[in-house]
Amino acid sequence: MYSYMTKPKAYLFDVFGTIVDWRNGVSDVSQRFFDAKNLEENPHTFADAWRAKYQPAMEKIRSGNRGYFPLDILHRENLDELLAQLDLTNAFSEEETQELNRAWEQLPPWADSVCGLEAIKQNAIIAPCSNGSIALMTRLAKFGSLPWDCILGAEIAQNYKPHPDAYSKSVSALGLKPHEVMMVAAHNSDLVAAKACGLMTGFIARPTEHGAGQTIDLEPTEDWDVVISEIGQLAQ
Amino acid sequence: MYSYMTKPKAYLFDVFGTIVDWRNGVSDVSQRFFDAKNLEENPHTFADAWRAKYQPAMEKIRSGNRGYFPLDILHRENLDELLAQLDLTNAFSEEETQELNRAWEQLPPWADSVCGLEAIKQNAIIAPCSNGSIALMTRLAKFGSLPWDCILGAEIAQNYKPHPDAYSKSVSALGLKPHEVMMVAAHNSDLVAAKACGLMTGFIARPTEHGAGQTIDLEPTEDWDVVISEIGQLAQ
Repeated sequence: MYSYMTKPKAYLFDVFGTIVDWRNGVSDVSQRFFDAKNLEENPHTFADAWRAKYQPAMEKIRSGNRGYFPLDILHRENLDELLAQLDLTNAFSEEETQELNRAWEQLPPWADSVCGLEAIKQNAIIAPCSNGSIALMTRLAKFGSLPWDCILGAEIAQNYKPHPDAYSKSVSALGLKPHEVMMVAAHNSDLVAAKACGLMTGFIARPTEHGAGQTIDLEPTEDWDVVISEIGQLAQ
Repeated sequence: MYSYMTKPKAYLFDVFGTIVDWRNGVSDVSQRFFDAKNLEENPHTFADAWRAKYQPAMEKIRSGNRGYFPLDILHRENLDELLAQLDLTNAFSEEETQELNRAWEQLPPWADSVCGLEAIKQNAIIAPCSNGSIALMTRLAKFGSLPWDCILGAEIAQNYKPHPDAYSKSVSALGLKPHEVMMVAAHNSDLVAAKACGLMTGFIARPTEHGAGQTIDLEPTEDWDVVISEIGQLAQ
């Protein structure tokens, strides 16, 4: 796979969608909260609606209209907004709402993620370059046994992907040059931004990230350095 | 051990001296470099002299007289200064000097460190709160199989211990309050600073950190929350 290129000294991974299944994870946790209150919300619709507020919330920060706040805060603001839209503002106590917001710390890894990361880790540094905070990524790693060497990404950069700082400052934090590092993601747009910063790129399709009817990111849209079907293939 | 206190949700560890044996590690790597050039420097004297430049270099940053630079840079500046003092400026090539500077990434853990950290990690977050950079701490962890959940400390805070930011910003990055976190160190001065920030404190003596004639930090100098003789005792 690497015959034509330098083997990366470090691999940075997108996490939500690439390493873990956020949609079923958020749905499972939300379902438990709805059941406890005899609410009949569809948990997948709820997860999708919560996630739909993700990019607009980060865009305020990326555009410079708001200082950096960790994703846990944005998730909570988005949750409050969503609950209000669904007339559920008073359905949960403050403590319960805080706990529901921790759904993002309890997302199951895709079946190939953990063993694949373990294999890559034998010969290179592995780290998330996610929009999740250090706190979120740390707890998510403990939940799913993700064997990161360190946590990089938005909080290190104090800005959100796909802002160039998120990639460049993560690379700098390792004392490496962009061409020594590969960004791995299930989202073509993430790789477009990483490539523009000089990183190598690896694409993996996650065709059910958005559920059965997914229409985006089913295929690589550019000539990425590698295209894999399981994370562990990067170790070969 | 914890009957009178809340069990910490996270443990932050000093690393140089507390988790790893920096003096023998730096000495071993330096010895290889001296041998290759038929130099008869005493490697322990060399390690001690290099380390002696550590606090003054950080003090310029803590005092606000210099912006934050990662410890790898300070180590390199101190190495160049030391080699000059020993009339060894031209003894090593630039590439060799860079490699010698990486001695700090190759420090052996004390015998109880790895298994102790593994045990604590089952029920709490573990992270370094060191003056080492993310790059340095990440590579040191790979060298010694230190199973950190994430890397905190000076680079997260953009300031060096014992400045309060180094502790407070590390705690904040976990989304925790200071009273939920314990700082563990072999240096009483580190714990004085952590305690002032509201953290719990744990002391472990490392009586040979500075060699056989060590005179400091042989005993706890204050009534720390816990005093241990092996890291794994914190898991009990």
